[in-house]
Amino acid sequence: MSKGPGLLTLTTDFGTVDGYSGAVKGRVLSIAPGVQVVDISHEITPQNIGQGAWCLRRAVPRFPPGTVHLAVVDPGVGSSRSGVVIETENYLLVGPDNGLLSLAAADDGIVRLIEISEDREEWYKSPSFDALTFFAPVAGHLLAGISLDEVGPEAEDLVEWPDPQVKVQGNVIEGAVTAFDRFGNAATNIPSWALDDREVEHIYLKAAIDVTYCDHYAQLAGGVHVGAIVNSDGRLELTRYSGSLQQAMNIQVGDPVRVLLRPY
Amino acid sequence: MSKGPGLLTLTTDFGTVDGYSGAVKGRVLSIAPGVQVVDISHEITPQNIGQGAWCLRRAVPRFPPGTVHLAVVDPGVGSSRSGVVIETENYLLVGPDNGLLSLAAADDGIVRLIEISEDREEWYKSPSFDALTFFAPVAGHLLAGISLDEVGPEAEDLVEWPDPQVKVQGNVIEGAVTAFDRFGNAATNIPSWALDDREVEHIYLKAAIDVTYCDHYAQLAGGVHVGAIVNSDGRLELTRYSGSLQQAMNIQVGDPVRVLLRPY
Amino acid sequence: MSKGPGLLTLTTDFGTVDGYSGAVKGRVLSIAPGVQVVDISHEITPQNIGQGAWCLRRAVPRFPPGTVHLAVVDPGVGSSRSGVVIETENYLLVGPDNGLLSLAAADDGIVRLIEISEDREEWYKSPSFDALTFFAPVAGHLLAGISLDEVGPEAEDLVEWPDPQVKVQGNVIEGAVTAFDRFGNAATNIPSWALDDREVEHIYLKAAIDVTYCDHYAQLAGGVHVGAIVNSDGRLELTRYSGSLQQAMNIQVGDPVRVLLRPY
Repeated sequence: MSKGPGLLTLTTDFGTVDGYSGAVKGRVLSIAPGVQVVDISHEITPQNIGQGAWCLRRAVPRFPPGTVHLAVVDPGVGSSRSGVVIETENYLLVGPDNGLLSLAAADDGIVRLIEISEDREEWYKSPSFDALTFFAPVAGHLLAGISLDEVGPEAEDLVEWPDPQVKVQGNVIEGAVTAFDRFGNAATNIPSWALDDREVEHIYLKAAIDVTYCDHYAQLAGGVHVGAIVNSDGRLELTRYSGSLQQAMNIQVGDPVRVLLRPY
Repeated sequence: MSKGPGLLTLTTDFGTVDGYSGAVKGRVLSIAPGVQVVDISHEITPQNIGQGAWCLRRAVPRFPPGTVHLAVVDPGVGSSRSGVVIETENYLLVGPDNGLLSLAAADDGIVRLIEISEDREEWYKSPSFDALTFFAPVAGHLLAGISLDEVGPEAEDLVEWPDPQVKVQGNVIEGAVTAFDRFGNAATNIPSWALDDREVEHIYLKAAIDVTYCDHYAQLAGGVHVGAIVNSDGRLELTRYSGSLQQAMNIQVGDPVRVLLRPY
Repeated sequence: MSKGPGLLTLTTDFGTVDGYSGAVKGRVLSIAPGVQVVDISHEITPQNIGQGAWCLRRAVPRFPPGTVHLAVVDPGVGSSRSGVVIETENYLLVGPDNGLLSLAAADDGIVRLIEISEDREEWYKSPSFDALTFFAPVAGHLLAGISLDEVGPEAEDLVEWPDPQVKVQGNVIEGAVTAFDRFGNAATNIPSWALDDREVEHIYLKAAIDVTYCDHYAQLAGGVHVGAIVNSDGRLELTRYSGSLQQAMNIQVGDPVRVLLRPY
């Protein structure tokens, strides 16, 4: 990993009204003054690890090499689940070992996995707020220049968030809804390369709902019921021109999406 | 425009849980490391261009000269609507040409209008997320030092958000509700200069609701039904001491507000 | 107070969609360019001074010495309530004199209380938005280097937010619920030192609800009805493993919490 500027991102489910996310910022800045602190989100739905993992997958790869990403969505706080620092090709990811960091880490390429030592005096686990007493000091000291070796021993197994892969067989692609965004659009796990520049014949959502493939979001304005476009993550996304697709069609994460390509 | 510090503001309707606004920040910082990134809002109501335009009108003029303001509320993403950079007396405003930037730009004084070229390799339009692939790189490269000439050709027509002007005739000022804030207060388009330091005889909202003119917000505590004060934008604002005026009176943007001044 | 880096925190009930918090940031940066601006919160419930006071109590002490904390939750805007700068052992706190700053200030140790002069030309009180015209310029000029003497005269009395103290008598600790967080957990005013490392025999909430004392948040997973842990503020906090305790048990700020320690 190249040495980058002192840049920290924060992703939590703390909200802001309780002062917890503010406390974390203060703690890091007390250890590493002058570091640039950038909020990714403090509005992850409480304890929704999957939403946090997808948020990180989208945002993390856009940051410059050397960025330290601190993320805490942590239903297991106070239990024996450990804390990790994941060194990837370009970043350091700091947080609980519960799958939150795994999608972003895998996408960037994992170089080394460190289990945060619980025997250092610079940080400690607390009954209810490891973000402040454990993870923030680790991120702060990494930004202030300690080496990964000082954080803890190498570990082997990372808890991974489910990342179902598509099945491509002949003219059929079978995928699933993976996440919803603020607008109620439904992201899928179907990558654009699976379409292979071939003509899309049919797309079905939950086996029965017809989906129209569109080149552009604005095409949907012309009365399309449910549309599919390739989103900025390079994956198929289901959407409506106005209103929430999620609510209108009562869709869940995991609902099947099937694409039929026109035979050669 | 004087050369200012490397300062970027962001105004979007992306929320934060999906990672989109985080991705935009990362993209800009990858192109222009060290730039100070300041959030104005990521909570504009989805696709509500008018709310974004008023948010920008309030916040933009307070920033130091040289600030780059990136704003994306963009129902037309993926269509043929173009992207613009507006050079004003003090700022560069970057975003879609849909009216979002027009109020803030007009207030500061438009110097030059640039249509962002779609033939540059540093950025490209995408089906669903121009903020990341198109607008963020433009803002980043401007902050990194490219000239406006390199962004694209000059253009002539800017899409303008409606900005109804008040009518002043003798002792009567006819205006309208233009926007609501978080507290349910209703801003109007009636500027304080229209009152001309004259005594206010009556104010009517929607022709039938009596409004009491107050010098101070705290005057409302004494049992005033609906009050009017001059707000920090220098315009008349309708308000209640507690609770939302918008909800209590079922007011809409565009509802008429009529001020009768005492005859000389 | 030691001279720290140019670091400003912001805590308001302005939300972000109206541009008010953005305007405040711009105003400060226009006066003190290059200052690092860190959001603690703009989502304090409108006019909820107590929530703001607790948010500040949590976040403020984590920041490095020299930080300027600007906070505005201000139902009395436009009235005669005055503005203050509180110099504490480590910080400058700027805001309305309505109790908002008092908990954080008392915790850090008040050194000097300044009433902001209304006769300076750098700032002025406005009918509805003192944050922009009064408090932001004060914070900006302090960050830009003016002395406290230039801000205004020393004052003696600070409006204090109620901070009920626990009563400890023999084996009984009597406290109360002080605040709720985003997850619906109920913080109390019972400090961990009051438990004195003694065994907890019973905890009652609202006289009738049994509460189980836990060492760790994760212990609650095993079917505990209502649990109590020592939180990161060093105070007893009541919680459930999933869902909001506040909603499930219909708890209010001020509800009594009684701890019985096992007799020696």
